[in-house]
Amino acid sequence: MSLIVQKFGGSSVADAESIKRVAKRIVETHREGNEVVVAVSAMGDTTDDLLDLAHEVTPIPAPRELDMLLTAGERISMALLAMAIRSLGYDARSFTGSQAGMITDAQHGAARIVDVTPGRLREALDEGAIAIVAGFQGFSRESRDITTLGRGGSDTTAVALAAALGADICEIYTDVDGIFTSDPRIVKRARKIDRITSEEMLELAGSGAKVLHIRAVEYARRHNVTLHVRSSFNYNVGTIVYDPQKLPEGEESTMEESIIAGVATDLSQAKITVVGVPDVPGVAAKLFKIVANTNANVDMIVQNVSAASTGRTDISFTLPKDDGQKAITALSNAQDGIGFESLQYDDQIGKLAVVGNAMRTNSGVSATLFEALYEAGINIEMISTSEIRISIVTRADSINDAVRAVHTAFGLDAEDEAVVHGGTGR
Amino acid sequence: MSLIVQKFGGSSVADAESIKRVAKRIVETHREGNEVVVAVSAMGDTTDDLLDLAHEVTPIPAPRELDMLLTAGERISMALLAMAIRSLGYDARSFTGSQAGMITDAQHGAARIVDVTPGRLREALDEGAIAIVAGFQGFSRESRDITTLGRGGSDTTAVALAAALGADICEIYTDVDGIFTSDPRIVKRARKIDRITSEEMLELAGSGAKVLHIRAVEYARRHNVTLHVRSSFNYNVGTIVYDPQKLPEGEESTMEESIIAGVATDLSQAKITVVGVPDVPGVAAKLFKIVANTNANVDMIVQNVSAASTGRTDISFTLPKDDGQKAITALSNAQDGIGFESLQYDDQIGKLAVVGNAMRTNSGVSATLFEALYEAGINIEMISTSEIRISIVTRADSINDAVRAVHTAFGLDAEDEAVVHGGTGR
Repeated sequence: MSLIVQKFGGSSVADAESIKRVAKRIVETHREGNEVVVAVSAMGDTTDDLLDLAHEVTPIPAPRELDMLLTAGERISMALLAMAIRSLGYDARSFTGSQAGMITDAQHGAARIVDVTPGRLREALDEGAIAIVAGFQGFSRESRDITTLGRGGSDTTAVALAAALGADICEIYTDVDGIFTSDPRIVKRARKIDRITSEEMLELAGSGAKVLHIRAVEYARRHNVTLHVRSSFNYNVGTIVYDPQKLPEGEESTMEESIIAGVATDLSQAKITVVGVPDVPGVAAKLFKIVANTNANVDMIVQNVSAASTGRTDISFTLPKDDGQKAITALSNAQDGIGFESLQYDDQIGKLAVVGNAMRTNSGVSATLFEALYEAGINIEMISTSEIRISIVTRADSINDAVRAVHTAFGLDAEDEAVVHGGTGR
Repeated sequence: MSLIVQKFGGSSVADAESIKRVAKRIVETHREGNEVVVAVSAMGDTTDDLLDLAHEVTPIPAPRELDMLLTAGERISMALLAMAIRSLGYDARSFTGSQAGMITDAQHGAARIVDVTPGRLREALDEGAIAIVAGFQGFSRESRDITTLGRGGSDTTAVALAAALGADICEIYTDVDGIFTSDPRIVKRARKIDRITSEEMLELAGSGAKVLHIRAVEYARRHNVTLHVRSSFNYNVGTIVYDPQKLPEGEESTMEESIIAGVATDLSQAKITVVGVPDVPGVAAKLFKIVANTNANVDMIVQNVSAASTGRTDISFTLPKDDGQKAITALSNAQDGIGFESLQYDDQIGKLAVVGNAMRTNSGVSATLFEALYEAGINIEMISTSEIRISIVTRADSINDAVRAVHTAFGLDAEDEAVVHGGTGR
C-alpha cells in the first residue's frame, strides 16, 4: 500500500462539476489500494475575489485579518471536495491547516513552516478515510493565530505533508500535462519533460517557469520528496521531479540525459544600472546593502571591468519590476555618500535561461547558446551563470524569438505542437 | 466601564460599505469608554450561496463537512469587519467560534452550547482591543470538529458571550427598529415595543415573531442577559428585553404595563386531524410518540370531548409544514395498531397569538379576542392557551384581517404608520 499526496489547484476545483470530477479521480487512487491525502486550493478566483473585498474595505488590510479572510477560500473548497467524495460512498474528512498540523511562524501572509504534526491525518488514514487538507494555510503556536504561506502555498502544503507522512509520491495536479522544455504558448514545439532533477527544476522555476513554485521544489528537494506534475484533465503520465541520488525503485541511473532540460523566460524583471561607481573595495557591498534594505529581490548582478582612465565602473543588476521604484529611491538618496554618477532604469528587458544538469560535464553549452542568439539577431545585454544554468538578458520584445531559436538549437523541438490549456491555480 | 456585546446580522454586513458603516458604529461604542465584543453573521446571502454550492455537489451533504463549509461565511465577514475597524485606527481582532471558546456538543448543524471559555476575548479586551467573534459557530471538544449552532445561531452566540463575559447588555442590531406589537408589514399601525419581559418575548418568538430567535431569548432568560434589539440603520432606542426580577438600574418596577405586549402570526404551520380515535387511556401518548419519532415539532394539540355514542374522539395538532409529510406517513403506517378512522391534512391554516404578561392578572382577554375575531367575521378552528398567551388557528387567507382586528381591539394601534425595512439576517 502506497501513501500518495495529491494537490489540486484552483482551476481544477473551479466549480461544482470540477469538484465532482476531482473527487472521482481521488477515489480511483484510493480504490487502487493507496492511502490518499489531498491538498486543495481555493476554488477558481475565490482568493482574488476575497482580496478585492478586503481592498474595498481598506487599502491596507491588517495582515492577521487578511489571513483569516483568505483561509475561508480553502475551507470552502475542501469541505465541498470531502462532501463530493462522501457522496461517492467513501469516507473523507476535511482538515484546516491548523487541524492538519501545519505549524508555521507568525509571519502573516508569508509564514514559514516550522513543524508538521499530521496526527489527525494519520488517524483518518488508519480509519480508511481520505484526508482533504486546506492548502496555503497554517497555524502559529506562538501567536495562536491562523497564517497563510504566501505564494506557491498550496504546492508547499502538499510537499510538506508528503514529507511529514513519508509519502511515496506527491502528485501536483494542474491544467497542463507537466513541465515543458519551454512555455508551449510561445514555443509551439515545446516538449513535455518526462523526468527532471529537483536541482534543474529549481533553476527553471527560479528563471520564470510557472508550473511549480520554487518554494515547493526547494522543500521537496530538502526532504527528498519525489514530485509528479500532471494534468487533472487526463490520465497521461506527467513530469517526475526527482533527486538523482534517490532514484525511484527500478529506475536506471545510467539513462541518457539531454544536455539541456529546458529554456525558461521571464518578463517580470527590470534592470538598474549604477553608472560611474568608484572602483574601490566595499562599494558594491554598500550598494547592495542599500538595495537589500528595501527588501528588493536582486537577481542577476553584472559588473564591468573598470575603465583604467577613470577608475570608475558600471554595475547593473536585475530585480522584479515591482521592487524597482523603491530601489531607485533608496539608491538616489545614497548618491552623494557613494559617489556614483547616475542611475539608469530599464523595464523593457527579457530574461532567458537554459538549464541542464548535464551542463556540468558538457562544454560548449554557452557557445551553442550565444551562436543561436547571434544567428537569430538577438543582442545580449547581460550574462550570468550557475553550475547548471546560463541566463542572459535581452530586449523584452525579442524574448520570444530568442527562446524559439535556443529551443531549436539545443535539439529540444518536438515533432508535434503541444496542446495548450489555460492558466494554473495557486 | 461597561462591557457591551453587539450582534450584527447578515443584512447589516451585506457589502463592503455596510461593513464600514458597522465598523464606525462599533468604534463609537468603544470610544464612549465601553469594552466591546461583536458577534457577526455571514454577509448577506453568503450562507444560502454556500448551501446552494453544497447541493450542486451532492443532494445530502455530510453534516461535518457542511459545518466546515458554512463557517467560511462568518470567517469572511468577521475578518473584513476587523480590518475595517483597524483602518479607523482602533485595535480589533477576529476570532472563530473555536478561538472564542464556544464549546458545543458534536451535533453538526444544530450543536448545543455546553461551555463558553472566552479567555482570548478577555485578553483582547484587556489589551484595549475590540473582539469580533464569528456568530453561529462552535467547536466540539469531543470530536475536535467545527460545529454550527443551527437557526438563530448568531443571536445565540451573542447572548452566550454576554453571559460568559458578564456583559452589561447584549445589543442585537437588525434592520428594524425593535420588536413591534405586530408585523408592521401587515399591521400598518404596529408600534415599537419599548420594553418587554423575556417571558413575553419567548411566547412571541414561539408564536411566529421573527426578529429574535426563541433560542437566544431562552438563553438570555436563563442567564439573566438583558437584550436591546435595535436598528443598525439609525440611533433610535429599540426594544429592551429584560427579566422583571432583575430590572435595569434606576428603573421603576411599578410602571404601567399594557395588558397585551404583542400579536404574532404564523403561516408556516399545518394541521393534522386524527379522526375517530378510540377514547381509551394511552392512545394520545401512542399517537404523539409516533409523531415525535419523526422529529416533527408539534405545537398546538386539541382533543374534542368524545361522542358518547361512539366512544371515539378527534385529535388535531399543528406542526411545521415541512414536517407534515413524514408525520402523515408514520401515522398512516400505525393506523391499524391504533385503530383510528382516518387522517386529515390541512396546510391552509394561519395561527394568531396574543401575548402579555399582565394577562395573568387581567380577566377578559380571551373575551376581547374572540369578540374582535367574531366582529371581523373570522372563524376560530382551534384554541390553545398558556399562562401569558392565547393562540387561535383560523384560515390562512383571513390571518391578516384577523391580526389587524385584534391589534386594534387591544388598543395597540399607533397614531402613525411604522416605517418598514427589508428582511433580517441569520
